[in-house]
Order: sequence, then structure tokens, then C-alpha cells
Amino acid sequence: MPESLGRPLETPLIPKLAIIGLGLIGASLARVARQQNLARDIVGADADPAVRARAKEIGLGDTMTGDLAEAVADADIVILCVPVGAMRSVAAAIGPHLKQGAIVSDTGSVKASVIEAVAPHLPAHAHLVPGHPVAGTEYSGPDAGFSTLFVNRWSILTPPEGTDEAAVRLMSDFWTAAGANVEVMSATHHDIVLAITSHVPHLIAYNIVRTAADLETVTQSEVMKFSAGGFRDFTRIASSDPTMWRDVFLNNRDAVLEVLGRFNEDLSSLQRMVRSGDGDGLFDLFTRTRAIRRGIIAQGQETAAPDFGRRVSEAKV
Amino acid sequence: MPESLGRPLETPLIPKLAIIGLGLIGASLARVARQQNLARDIVGADADPAVRARAKEIGLGDTMTGDLAEAVADADIVILCVPVGAMRSVAAAIGPHLKQGAIVSDTGSVKASVIEAVAPHLPAHAHLVPGHPVAGTEYSGPDAGFSTLFVNRWSILTPPEGTDEAAVRLMSDFWTAAGANVEVMSATHHDIVLAITSHVPHLIAYNIVRTAADLETVTQSEVMKFSAGGFRDFTRIASSDPTMWRDVFLNNRDAVLEVLGRFNEDLSSLQRMVRSGDGDGLFDLFTRTRAIRRGIIAQGQETAAPDFGRRVSEAKV
Repeated sequence: MPESLGRPLETPLIPKLAIIGLGLIGASLARVARQQNLARDIVGADADPAVRARAKEIGLGDTMTGDLAEAVADADIVILCVPVGAMRSVAAAIGPHLKQGAIVSDTGSVKASVIEAVAPHLPAHAHLVPGHPVAGTEYSGPDAGFSTLFVNRWSILTPPEGTDEAAVRLMSDFWTAAGANVEVMSATHHDIVLAITSHVPHLIAYNIVRTAADLETVTQSEVMKFSAGGFRDFTRIASSDPTMWRDVFLNNRDAVLEVLGRFNEDLSSLQRMVRSGDGDGLFDLFTRTRAIRRGIIAQGQETAAPDFGRRVSEAKV
Repeated sequence: MPESLGRPLETPLIPKLAIIGLGLIGASLARVARQQNLARDIVGADADPAVRARAKEIGLGDTMTGDLAEAVADADIVILCVPVGAMRSVAAAIGPHLKQGAIVSDTGSVKASVIEAVAPHLPAHAHLVPGHPVAGTEYSGPDAGFSTLFVNRWSILTPPEGTDEAAVRLMSDFWTAAGANVEVMSATHHDIVLAITSHVPHLIAYNIVRTAADLETVTQSEVMKFSAGGFRDFTRIASSDPTMWRDVFLNNRDAVLEVLGRFNEDLSSLQRMVRSGDGDGLFDLFTRTRAIRRGIIAQGQETAAPDFGRRVSEAKV
């Protein structure tokens, strides 16, 4: 049994919701919006005709369109669920068609650059409330979405100073009704927090998988066979959507490079401990890192069930 | 339902099995040996009286002792499941008490240094067949053990040249009956394979968790809350047994430093791609790493179920 959503709202939060981009996040949002009665009408839009056809087949929303002007017409909330690199052109396309008082939000993994890309294209009568639900899987596409993706996860809102408070409150209610916890912070702070909790871990995972693939002394078949020793978990992270992650690194460069610099410093000192045989130093460090995990489990962001020994049938969704 | 073991053997493989060290691996071995009828008598030994008491309570083996001489007396197979750093002293203690033709094996995560530590202490009438089941969880201690830990995992044997073939065959049959697949290779090759599939991934995980803990700009509470973005998986790896991992790095230093050198080279080039905004290079790399994961799933070493979105109740064992 998955963690479950609460009772659906008795009356829809808004008349019309437009979801632009029907990948993992957009599709999950469409599903939870329907299930929780977040909007009376749900319009889905995607640039890819194949994605639209599939989204229609599996019932993501009431209307499906490739026309952004049509999608956002009369929408109370428009959520951009496209890769960060596509935000600017989508904003330019929808800007002139937003109704009075419309809220534009997004689900991009970086925030400062998204605000920079989107804000200039919105009319004064619309409200920009950037957002980022910290949730996902290593899968992508409309079929990957599911309604409980956001349950008990954190959704971060990063409204620029002076943003309409009612608009922020509505987006907060929206995410709460979708099962998420909401936190508000500045875009800059978001970007450094996510650099350490998500972006640099992904970069490192991609890197170690590449290193393994390129080693001449160990065959790929060996890498795969003996991956249960730890490597396996890195490959899951390193199989996330390439387009999304390319855009993350292109758009959160400064924070990523800053955190990566710290990681490299720390790794050099750890490397020195290994080289010099500093057993006490290694033991102390390995003991200290355990505490962080306990905190994550205590906060309900993880299960305590052992995972290295996970068995296929148990892990099936 | 966990992956299951096959039918138990009709007659025990050997009369007496001694398991030295009753942590996660030793306890799992005791359980599967009993369940699959691998030995008529199972003796468990541990230096820690509290561990022995607990092992007795939960029924790990027929006899429990703190006396290594007593544990290995008349044993046909003795398996050392102690941290790599303890192998030498255990070997010295059991050497004089091994019976004619006894097989000594182990489950250490490094092999060349274990052979170097153990071999000199064994009498000529005993056979050393070093082993390493590539399986585990992030938990430790006798309570963490379970009988299906080795099912469909690989167990590597690294017999030095000239090892008695019948002894190698018996250890191979032993692991097969415990549910594992068996592969034989040289100790040196094992150590480089494991450096990339396990040791360096662990080192990197420990390192990123430490970096996160030490960042001044992001609070620990934030790290924990927003860990679902990828960091969470690293904390699991970084919560593995500190003693075991200290010993791994002290005893597989050369292979670890070699692989780490390659990792660092690769990371520098990736860092340069981020700095210079090389979107095509990033995209190509992120696409390539997906293929490795598919291979691991195809080989049955991993489930294809999405894991980032894992939900507490599903993941419970």
C-alpha cells in the first residue's frame, strides 16, 4: 500500500488548472489534481504529439492541446512542468494569453534562473509564484506519473519579494492538498540547498558510473554482476532524465560549482586518510555520517527498512 | 514475499560448520545454513559476550562460544565473518586447532590482504578458500541477519594458486546451496573490481554526507528535509558499519586510490563541462550512464521499480 492522500476537497480550489509539460511531474500533478479535486477543469499541454496522445489515452486531464495560448486561456493557475531550459520560451508563448490575476508557477529544480527566464515575459496582471516539489523517481514521461508522488515530500515556493500574498497562499494550499509539505524561501537559498541535497549528488553519481564504464581493468559485465556492493544505488540516480539534468547544471552553475569545490576539498582529505592509513580518522568520519541518516528517517523522508538487500518482489510498486 | 531459497538439502553438506563473528553476514550465514541444511552442527563464535547472548536468544546455531579453539575443533568448514582488520588475530588463534583437511574461508570485502593475514597462520593440513559474498545491508549486528540475504547475489571465491580443488568445489557448493551464484577469480582482480563496484562508491557517499553536514550556508534540518532529491540514497550507503569500512580502506588502499584517481580525473572534466556550459557534453554523458543501469536490471541484480518515490509502507520488510 502506498502512502495515501487525504480526503479530496469538497469544492475545487480553482475553476481551471493548466499543466504545461506532461512528463513525470506534470503527469503526477494531473493525476493528483483530479483525485483531490484541486480544479474543476484540467488542461494538459505538451509540445510532443506522441506525449499528448498518450496523456489523452491514460486520462491526464480533461483537455489536451499543443497550443499554449489555448491551454492557458482562462486558467487560474498555470504550472510549467517543462525542463528548466524550456521555461523562457514557454513563458514568452503564454505571457500574452494569461487572464487577469492568473498565477504562473513551475516545478523546476533551480529557481533563480527560472525567475530570470520567466518573469520578463509575464504581464503585470499575472502573479509569478515559482515552486519546486522535491520529489521524483528515476523515470520520465507521462506513464511514469502517479498521484501520490508528492505525499509527505516538501514543496518549496520561492516568490520574489513583493509577490501577491494571496497568490502565494493559494499555491501553498494547492500543494498541501496534493499531499506535500510547503516551505517558502528565497530562490538563491533554494539553489544552494538543492545543490547539496540533489544536484551535486547527481553529478557525482553520473561521474562514478562513467568511471566504472571506462575502467579498462574491470569489464562492464563484472561491474553489473557485483553492483550489489553499493554501486547499484548510484546507477539508479545516474539514470534520471538527461535533458532535465543537463538543464539543472547549466542553470545552477554557481551553486553547483561552490558545493563541488567543498566536496573536492573534503575528498582530498579523505584520500589522504586512506593513503596514510589513518584508521581512527576514517572510523570517526564513518560514525558521524550515520547520524545524518537517522535524522532523515526520523523526519519521515525515508524508511528504515534495509535496502541493500532489497528483493525484487518486495520492491515492486 | 522475499526472493526465496530452493529446497533444503536432503543430507547436510558437512557434519560441522563454525561461523566466527555473528554480525550481519555471520548471522545471515547461520540462518541460511540451518534453513538449507548445509551442516549438521552449527557453532557460532563471537568475541563480544552481548552478541553471543543475543545470538543464542534468537537461535543462531546449536552452540555459542567465545572460545575460538573450541569453536573450530572438528569443524569441516570454518568461515571467518569478522572485520578484515581482525582476520590475522583470529587466524592465529584458530590455526593450531584446525582438524586435518579443514577448510578455512571468510567473507571479507578485500581479499589479497586477508590471504596475507590468514595464510601464514594455517597448518599445512588445512585449506584456505577465501570468499566474499557481495551482499549486505546498511545494518549490522546479529539481529540484522536474514536467511535470504545471499539469494541471487554473487559470491566470489579467490583461492590462491595450488589450492585443493575439492575444497574449492565444496565452498562453491556451499554458497550455491545458500542461494548465491559463485564466481572464481584472483584476489588481486577481486580487489580492483570491488574498489569500483563498492569501495569507492562508499567512500564518495561518506564524503558527500560529510560535505553536507559541514556546509555553513545550509542547515542540517534543510539537508534532511529536502533529501528526497537524491542525497537520501547516499546517506543509506554512508550509514554502513564504520569498523568494517575502516578496515576495507586500510586493506585495499592501492586499488581504492587507483580507482579514486580515475574518479577525480573524470570529475574534473565534468566540472569543466558545468563551468563552460557544455550542454551537449553533459547530455551525452547522462545518456550513456543510463545504459549501465539497464544492464544491472537485466542481470537480476536490481529491480526496475522506481525508488526515489518510494513510500514507507511499501519498502517495509
